[in-house]
Amino acid sequence: IWKMLTVAVSVALLGCLQAQQPQGHVSVILLGATGDLAKKYLWQGLFHLYLDEAGKGHRFSFHGAALTAPKQGQELMAKALETLSCPKDVAPSHCAERKDQFLQLSQYRQLKTAEDYRALSKDIEAQIQHEGLQEAGRIFYFSVPPFAYVDIARNINSSCRPGPGAWLRVVLEKPFGHDHHSAQQLATELGSFFQEEEMYRVDHYLGKQAVAQILPFRDQNRKALDSLWNRHHVERVEIVVKESVDAAGRTSFYEEYGVIRDILQNHLTEVLTLVAMELPHNVSSAEAVLQHKLQVFQALQGLQKGSAVVGQYQAYSEQVRRELQKPDSFHSLTPTFAGILVHIDNLRWEGVPFILMSGKALDERVGYVRVLFKNQAHCVQSERRWLEAQSQCLPRQVVFHIGHGDLGGPAVLVSRNLFRPFLPSKSWTEMEDQPGLRLFGRPLSDYYAYSPVREQDAYSILLSHIFHCRKDSFITTENLLASWVFWTPVLDSLAHEVPRLYPGGAENGHLLDFEFSGSQLFFSQQQLEQLVPGPGSAPVPSDFQVLRAKYRESPLISAWPEELISKLAADIEATAMRAVQHFGKFHLALSGGSSPVALFQQLAMGHYGFPWAHTHLWLVDERCVPLSDPESNFHGLQAHLLQHVRVPYYNIHPMPVQLRQRLCAEEDQGTQIYASEISALVTNNSFDLVLLGMGTDGHTASLFPQSPTGLDGEQLVVLTKSPFRPHLRMSLSLPLINRAKKVAVLVMGRMKREITLLVSRVGREPKKWPISGVLPSSGQLVWYMDYEAFLG
Amino acid sequence: IWKMLTVAVSVALLGCLQAQQPQGHVSVILLGATGDLAKKYLWQGLFHLYLDEAGKGHRFSFHGAALTAPKQGQELMAKALETLSCPKDVAPSHCAERKDQFLQLSQYRQLKTAEDYRALSKDIEAQIQHEGLQEAGRIFYFSVPPFAYVDIARNINSSCRPGPGAWLRVVLEKPFGHDHHSAQQLATELGSFFQEEEMYRVDHYLGKQAVAQILPFRDQNRKALDSLWNRHHVERVEIVVKESVDAAGRTSFYEEYGVIRDILQNHLTEVLTLVAMELPHNVSSAEAVLQHKLQVFQALQGLQKGSAVVGQYQAYSEQVRRELQKPDSFHSLTPTFAGILVHIDNLRWEGVPFILMSGKALDERVGYVRVLFKNQAHCVQSERRWLEAQSQCLPRQVVFHIGHGDLGGPAVLVSRNLFRPFLPSKSWTEMEDQPGLRLFGRPLSDYYAYSPVREQDAYSILLSHIFHCRKDSFITTENLLASWVFWTPVLDSLAHEVPRLYPGGAENGHLLDFEFSGSQLFFSQQQLEQLVPGPGSAPVPSDFQVLRAKYRESPLISAWPEELISKLAADIEATAMRAVQHFGKFHLALSGGSSPVALFQQLAMGHYGFPWAHTHLWLVDERCVPLSDPESNFHGLQAHLLQHVRVPYYNIHPMPVQLRQRLCAEEDQGTQIYASEISALVTNNSFDLVLLGMGTDGHTASLFPQSPTGLDGEQLVVLTKSPFRPHLRMSLSLPLINRAKKVAVLVMGRMKREITLLVSRVGREPKKWPISGVLPSSGQLVWYMDYEAFLG
Repeated sequence: IWKMLTVAVSVALLGCLQAQQPQGHVSVILLGATGDLAKKYLWQGLFHLYLDEAGKGHRFSFHGAALTAPKQGQELMAKALETLSCPKDVAPSHCAERKDQFLQLSQYRQLKTAEDYRALSKDIEAQIQHEGLQEAGRIFYFSVPPFAYVDIARNINSSCRPGPGAWLRVVLEKPFGHDHHSAQQLATELGSFFQEEEMYRVDHYLGKQAVAQILPFRDQNRKALDSLWNRHHVERVEIVVKESVDAAGRTSFYEEYGVIRDILQNHLTEVLTLVAMELPHNVSSAEAVLQHKLQVFQALQGLQKGSAVVGQYQAYSEQVRRELQKPDSFHSLTPTFAGILVHIDNLRWEGVPFILMSGKALDERVGYVRVLFKNQAHCVQSERRWLEAQSQCLPRQVVFHIGHGDLGGPAVLVSRNLFRPFLPSKSWTEMEDQPGLRLFGRPLSDYYAYSPVREQDAYSILLSHIFHCRKDSFITTENLLASWVFWTPVLDSLAHEVPRLYPGGAENGHLLDFEFSGSQLFFSQQQLEQLVPGPGSAPVPSDFQVLRAKYRESPLISAWPEELISKLAADIEATAMRAVQHFGKFHLALSGGSSPVALFQQLAMGHYGFPWAHTHLWLVDERCVPLSDPESNFHGLQAHLLQHVRVPYYNIHPMPVQLRQRLCAEEDQGTQIYASEISALVTNNSFDLVLLGMGTDGHTASLFPQSPTGLDGEQLVVLTKSPFRPHLRMSLSLPLINRAKKVAVLVMGRMKREITLLVSRVGREPKKWPISGVLPSSGQLVWYMDYEAFLG
Repeated sequence: IWKMLTVAVSVALLGCLQAQQPQGHVSVILLGATGDLAKKYLWQGLFHLYLDEAGKGHRFSFHGAALTAPKQGQELMAKALETLSCPKDVAPSHCAERKDQFLQLSQYRQLKTAEDYRALSKDIEAQIQHEGLQEAGRIFYFSVPPFAYVDIARNINSSCRPGPGAWLRVVLEKPFGHDHHSAQQLATELGSFFQEEEMYRVDHYLGKQAVAQILPFRDQNRKALDSLWNRHHVERVEIVVKESVDAAGRTSFYEEYGVIRDILQNHLTEVLTLVAMELPHNVSSAEAVLQHKLQVFQALQGLQKGSAVVGQYQAYSEQVRRELQKPDSFHSLTPTFAGILVHIDNLRWEGVPFILMSGKALDERVGYVRVLFKNQAHCVQSERRWLEAQSQCLPRQVVFHIGHGDLGGPAVLVSRNLFRPFLPSKSWTEMEDQPGLRLFGRPLSDYYAYSPVREQDAYSILLSHIFHCRKDSFITTENLLASWVFWTPVLDSLAHEVPRLYPGGAENGHLLDFEFSGSQLFFSQQQLEQLVPGPGSAPVPSDFQVLRAKYRESPLISAWPEELISKLAADIEATAMRAVQHFGKFHLALSGGSSPVALFQQLAMGHYGFPWAHTHLWLVDERCVPLSDPESNFHGLQAHLLQHVRVPYYNIHPMPVQLRQRLCAEEDQGTQIYASEISALVTNNSFDLVLLGMGTDGHTASLFPQSPTGLDGEQLVVLTKSPFRPHLRMSLSLPLINRAKKVAVLVMGRMKREITLLVSRVGREPKKWPISGVLPSSGQLVWYMDYEAFLG
């Protein structure tokens, strides 16, 4: 796939370069010419493009298009064009002249039917012929709702392609789908009409000056940043867009999308890739930039439900009810606020929290990227003697201030105790101090602070990039799909989550503040009151956090999953401490599967006193796959436990399922090898603790119902057959398990309810329900069941 | 050794409990009764002891002793006793009465000759007989210079031991030696006169109220701290004692000791153990506390020269010249300032920097322990809307304020955004706010702040602990030696280091500020000028820190040991990165022995970018001992490298020297097994890098001169015989080694000088000198030799 991708990118850029004519006619067709975006930004951007390029050899024609009938459309468009303004750095008389030309070159036309498109193309051809010029190319700007894309695309493809030697560029505005599936579908449809190199998907954040400066800044300050821009020095990265407005008037869109699809999946993710990517040697190579961007997506750690906190401003549901005529009982689950913790799993960024945050109805409007560096200094003198702005003990940060906020516009800030940055003086200039202004904990004077020489609108910049074929400022199909691959699972898992309600504005107080621990994110304040009764808040038996009872005449410990795992981990630790105290070592046999993963994590993170150096780890069972296969039980043990604790290599005893490059071959005698390893090290073949699970079919270890092996007899370790793939397994035998000093059976989840009930009623029938054969002959059996398994 | 230790501690405490009589006569003999310490603290402390204990059944007698003749001594002592003051919480009349009694019970006596000691003992016995009491015990307080210790100890042991059933306690004041050797010597001498349980080595910091509160605080706030007091939450720990005075008048002592021996080796290290130790279940069990303390020492990462920065205030050398009559040319190298970075190598603290810092002639006098927690919160609202003191985004810290500084005395501070601590209200009380006072970056009002209900002097507290046999407030022999084991290497390595000169006081500016990176510490500011030419600045071949040349026609890299190891580690990392980039994995074969240990440590600690997850580790050779045997090469690899990095289990390939519970049996085909493992995983049997050593006999890997195997032929892995024990070895063969893409030979130490010279002159004679057969057929060979091996 990577190879293919590289090829695709190369082709795209090649196509672009070939088609760049020194002179010729360029037609720009703005679809949705009378819409909001066109009125607000696009016409102005096109006028800027004309101002910049008109003198350089190309001729232009601008076609405003919409569904509106010609006359009315013409009027609407004329209105939109009235407001065109001249940039400050262009002489007014020159600009006025250009403006007149621009208005003359801009025509409205209705584009509704296939015939309309054919007519447009013919008119362009006629005009070019009339001018006696070659055609350079055509730009179609889709400023229309996405449902209209495919029709328009079909018409352009069939009727409006320019002749050979001239280029076609179609510019697309988000949303580009709603999730991975729909994005893929849309991409496939568009791909049937256009080449990859013909499409320019706009993320207008890539045109914002501070964002567009991220890569050049990293490039031009390589020397200073090379040693700093990594996990050893960066404490955290915050990518934040706060809005003070709410969604009123836009709920029909917003209700469909929510804050994550509106801001995080696109804008903030794009910014993230610019901050995190490996810096190409040549940052002006669009190909290299796009490839390095994709590598960031590859390295992103998958998001889970626990990686997000979501909120919704209190007035939102009422706004939706009003605007979308919903019944009074309607409560929206659409988040208007989200904080997301992203980790990047590569050598540069492992462990560094990237915090993505956006929301509506917050206390201020501001956007920024903040890279905070670790404090690794110790200042000897009393704090009051620190020289402000120079002390290495004060925060050190690099901020790309996207806009708004107290600075009121784009800026690049670098703490003075970090380094003096280089910024191109043609486009960035040092800001004057604004006494009293504090940013990110420090006065403005503590920063080298730069603002643009000339503030430019993102769309003007992007239109120029489209014209100059700078594809790195746009979203390629691969980029888009990679982003959706990343976001879709967490969007799915949040779909039924009740967002925390917040009042909005300054009133939010600390309600939305959040914290992280490992890869988990949570609100700092406990929710005081659940205002929207959602599916998550059914009554819970919190009065009996840990319940003690009997199950099959052995002790049963039952609790909510988290408490249950904590209790089990604590019990295992206590058993381990006792064993090490008495015998100098602790023999622990662990099962695979998903329930133990949480246990492993708990043991790895929470139990500092665990005597790992004296613990021997054995496997209860194993799938006949290589140990490095993610399917293997050992692999899970390795990933979730062994990587985090210090068990000596020779105390780790994976099952020898692979010998002589083959898997569980009888002739290789893996079971005997494991049995003799156990006999050699474990006194009386009696493990200190065996951790088992229970399958919905009553299996335990890899002893399956109706399986003839391992239920009795002398064999300590057996090969068995599972009804599930991979069928071949290696397992401790029931007699060996029952020799253990302690056996803990962990049963979790609603799925186990039925078998739990069934097994509670049966006698000892291991052939039907292998779990029923578990009863240590002189040891102790304890059942650990969460409420869902036990109470259903 | 641990078992023995446990026994020793138990016996000590047992002895203590047995001897605790409900009533009886207690004699306190203060040796050095007219000295500074006695005048300033000890008499006052003894008076407090008398106040506290006089009414509880014991009778006391106090003997001030010194070398001074009786009459003159009596006068001096009377003067010292004149200043005794009454605590505020004791009624003045009651106190005055007790003071009269105390003065009557206090007698001066000259203790000079053996006869004097015999007379003392007889007098005590006579007095007890006269009173008709049992003797409870005798306390001898050594407030004398350490050179006098042994004589006094001999006299006490031979003449002044109380009768059976009564205890003897000798109280010792530091210094307890100058390094590990001298401390061991002094301990052995004292140990020939006293039992461990009889000795109370004073570190008066353990009597300071804020220090003494550390363990109780951790115990009484277990619930809040349990989840916080570890590497996941603690950003750093600072243990700081700053003095504003200099060493003038004390240079004869100071010049011998310096700041590390004076403050860090004892006081700050003791505080460190209290902060870092695993909390015993019962913190009032002296046995448990002492054991847990020792475990901290066991886990301390060894200090290197790079773990320290040292300074000396500018006037110091002149003071030494004046006070010690040194010539004008004399420049002292004694540090008066030190910053040390300590890492603790256990699951709780791995990676957390513990900064120990002390110095004279600094800008203020203050002592504190500051535990700063990581900021893992994101505050959504604008900073100006954060609720001060509650925001999780503001620093969170726990401070044990030892004394002085802006607070002027002991205190315990806990950030209000952390938790509300419990402190026993009998002894600690909440402080009133002092508006305008800022501590550690925040106003005092941001803390829950507690000060002692009654400020107590450390010596009063310690004397009471001696009386009540609370050994956990004193330094056991094991504790003392463990501390010296930790500090001696860095003291040795700093012995010839020229400290950075600093002007002293507020003028120090940022000159002493330091930073850390990994385990390295360095001053933030470059040294402007080297003012004192010291022995460290003798001409060294620093111009060719790393020398490049040829050896046996292959590249040779030579340097001082530290630089050589750094260079080799960097080269290995670069090779690894390239291999992983091109092939997705890196096959590294490592030799055992002592030289690679430093390399392993360097790789483990300094190379965060190393692609361990994609590295396969192979052994070049192995001794035929179990892998868990400390003799095995794998064991060294495990201890010094594997424990610290994350190599997946299945990428680790120890040699199968033990199969079926036997070692290197031909029939078990270990060599074939290893060979086929290599063939299965390593393309073309060509390792990416093989690291070799060279023995003084010219052996390499486990290929020994005159050994018939492994020098040629088809076999990849062979069994060989070493002239050294254990004789049987497994080794990669020479042909296999020579298939490697790169071979690095590391040769270090003066011992290798001769063989280095010899091998430089011989041709390819592997039977005589196996190392001479190393020449990769299509790979690269590089020699890494330190100057001692190469230049002699």
